[in-house]
Amino acid sequence: MINRRVVIHRLRLIAQLRKQNPVVLTVANMVTPADVANGLNVLGASPIMSKAPEEAEDMVKIAQAVTINLGTIEAEQRKEMAAAMDAAQFLEVPAVFDPVACAGSSYRTEVADELLSKYQFACIRGNAGEIAALAGINWQSHGIDAGSGDGDLTKIAQKCAQKYHTVVAMTGVVDIITDGQKVIKVPFGSPLFAVHVGTGDMLSSIIAAFIGLGGDVLEATSQACLVFALAGQAAAETAKTPSRWYNQFLDNLYQADDQLIESWQKELQKED
Amino acid sequence: MINRRVVIHRLRLIAQLRKQNPVVLTVANMVTPADVANGLNVLGASPIMSKAPEEAEDMVKIAQAVTINLGTIEAEQRKEMAAAMDAAQFLEVPAVFDPVACAGSSYRTEVADELLSKYQFACIRGNAGEIAALAGINWQSHGIDAGSGDGDLTKIAQKCAQKYHTVVAMTGVVDIITDGQKVIKVPFGSPLFAVHVGTGDMLSSIIAAFIGLGGDVLEATSQACLVFALAGQAAAETAKTPSRWYNQFLDNLYQADDQLIESWQKELQKED
Amino acid sequence: MINRRVVIHRLRLIAQLRKQNPVVLTVANMVTPADVANGLNVLGASPIMSKAPEEAEDMVKIAQAVTINLGTIEAEQRKEMAAAMDAAQFLEVPAVFDPVACAGSSYRTEVADELLSKYQFACIRGNAGEIAALAGINWQSHGIDAGSGDGDLTKIAQKCAQKYHTVVAMTGVVDIITDGQKVIKVPFGSPLFAVHVGTGDMLSSIIAAFIGLGGDVLEATSQACLVFALAGQAAAETAKTPSRWYNQFLDNLYQADDQLIESWQKELQKED
Repeated sequence: MINRRVVIHRLRLIAQLRKQNPVVLTVANMVTPADVANGLNVLGASPIMSKAPEEAEDMVKIAQAVTINLGTIEAEQRKEMAAAMDAAQFLEVPAVFDPVACAGSSYRTEVADELLSKYQFACIRGNAGEIAALAGINWQSHGIDAGSGDGDLTKIAQKCAQKYHTVVAMTGVVDIITDGQKVIKVPFGSPLFAVHVGTGDMLSSIIAAFIGLGGDVLEATSQACLVFALAGQAAAETAKTPSRWYNQFLDNLYQADDQLIESWQKELQKED
Repeated sequence: MINRRVVIHRLRLIAQLRKQNPVVLTVANMVTPADVANGLNVLGASPIMSKAPEEAEDMVKIAQAVTINLGTIEAEQRKEMAAAMDAAQFLEVPAVFDPVACAGSSYRTEVADELLSKYQFACIRGNAGEIAALAGINWQSHGIDAGSGDGDLTKIAQKCAQKYHTVVAMTGVVDIITDGQKVIKVPFGSPLFAVHVGTGDMLSSIIAAFIGLGGDVLEATSQACLVFALAGQAAAETAKTPSRWYNQFLDNLYQADDQLIESWQKELQKED
Repeated sequence: MINRRVVIHRLRLIAQLRKQNPVVLTVANMVTPADVANGLNVLGASPIMSKAPEEAEDMVKIAQAVTINLGTIEAEQRKEMAAAMDAAQFLEVPAVFDPVACAGSSYRTEVADELLSKYQFACIRGNAGEIAALAGINWQSHGIDAGSGDGDLTKIAQKCAQKYHTVVAMTGVVDIITDGQKVIKVPFGSPLFAVHVGTGDMLSSIIAAFIGLGGDVLEATSQACLVFALAGQAAAETAKTPSRWYNQFLDNLYQADDQLIESWQKELQKED
């Protein structure tokens, strides 16, 4: 049983997000850009996407945050990522890295390593396997899965955060957010997140939106994960199949405000 | 309050569209091609999309209209756009231009200028900011927003139409359609259009489908905007959140015929 | 009237699919990759997509099946397809070919011919026009449409299968699956399949998932088509418009097990 009795004190960022409408530039994969854009949109952020290195700097100039998604990386997009990160670094625009399937091919591993060695990311968001691979830990051979071995997962997330001097959000049954020292856990969610392709991509860009507000990165990342997980778990209370759930989840994000988030949290904590 | 008591006399094109099934080639952005394709499909048009300059001419040969969407332009797609427009010009297939975020980067501005100087478009569809940028008007510094300054917006749309000898559809709270002289306003819609990414892209290709029927371009563009706006506003009567609304909107487009469109128009005019 | 009294004896693959979770690599078109990925996901398969020839071999190594989709083919993707098929051939990973609009341009015809002459596919899935074009039959000039001329369609499918020594799934009002000799017909479905763009692409990758289980290819292809068609027809019993239908269709696929599939089959056969 998951201990849901975790309190996150301040739920003020969602109101700020809807007021500030941060622009998030996502260098996106080809599979789920519409999900990412709509996820940002329903929360009040403004999505932009771009494929041309020629306009990377101009795009970063109008953005409050950047997300680099490794999902369908290829040579041209690698140039676009470099151009966007060069500009983000120079203009001090915070960036989130989503290392999709980074251990799935030596090409992805190479691109991920290059990006992480050249650029400073404010946050890395991935699942346990991806974060372990970046941390240099042979996670699968340890037989840890996301449903157990909680302590080990926390250590892996911390090691990854320390290695890259960044905040890590390792998302799964329980999201583990850490700056390498402090650890915040978000014990909400639904198995239906894994059934709809693109929810991870969406969360990475939503984290970027929260970070783009300009406050503490650990707090911003945690609140993004909390709103996301609560909206999804609340949706699963009534919608038990993937399409119905995804529609309700997006509509929950659209309606999310401090009051609704608090009521979800209270309601869902009761269940344990 | 918006004056909705605008009468558009002839609502006959929707029946013609469902009968003629025009093929629309969209050189699409990477974010919303599925929305564009499904929007065309539910209205009875046939969407085709292509990325290879090598097949641009063959694709244009089987199309009744072409849409060029600037959304995620890059070097290879620029070649595809040129190849498609060369063929469209030669074969006299009408084309619609959607100048997505054309003022967002100097690269986009350059590509937009090149396309507009080399090719004659039947219609340009964009929001107020995009149309103003093409018209050469510093719209934002004038503080005009889509909710007011109606007269100014009309002048901007007319100036853009005159500059490029084309029909302009400036879409927003009230859509303004003009050939530079005559002006038709479509005072329907819903704020939820802006929440779902890709509705603008979809409308541009739907306008192309209506123009592809072969009649008057100003009339065709106006009817496309009218059907689109009414279907969306009617959906918003019952569906108040983005996912529910978008599903209902697409289903409304699927069911739209002269009778239903007229009943929506009567019903929605009553509300003022 | 369609004779729906066709019995497919063994409905055991769906349970095996949910247990084995085969990984399917799709070299996808740009329009419907999210539909393909979600269709695989709700059935318990694992979708991966990739654009870089550099990682094609690594991706094929973790896949149980590959799908090559011609939908928005261009020069770079042609290289990716070749690299993926080289690896699939070498590693003996079965592949499905979806010849989207292969007769629509001489470029597509050329790419399709090249792929089919260089590589052995386990299955080709297409509509009647596509399969006829591959078989070298001028189908349209014979005036056959998918609603009639059943006998002719079967011969076309058989000829295509014989020519390429493969299983062919010609999908339409009645799906015709053949290895060139044996013929299995799946007489279920709904006109709404044609209204939602991407259902064909989705089916091709779902067929790959079933084939990836390792059994008889003709049987696997037939069962994939059966589950797909039944889930869609059952959805159309209650959901009459495209969005509602598509949501229900995906949710039906998610819930499909042997028992539900049998009950759909019994229910839908009664209707004739």
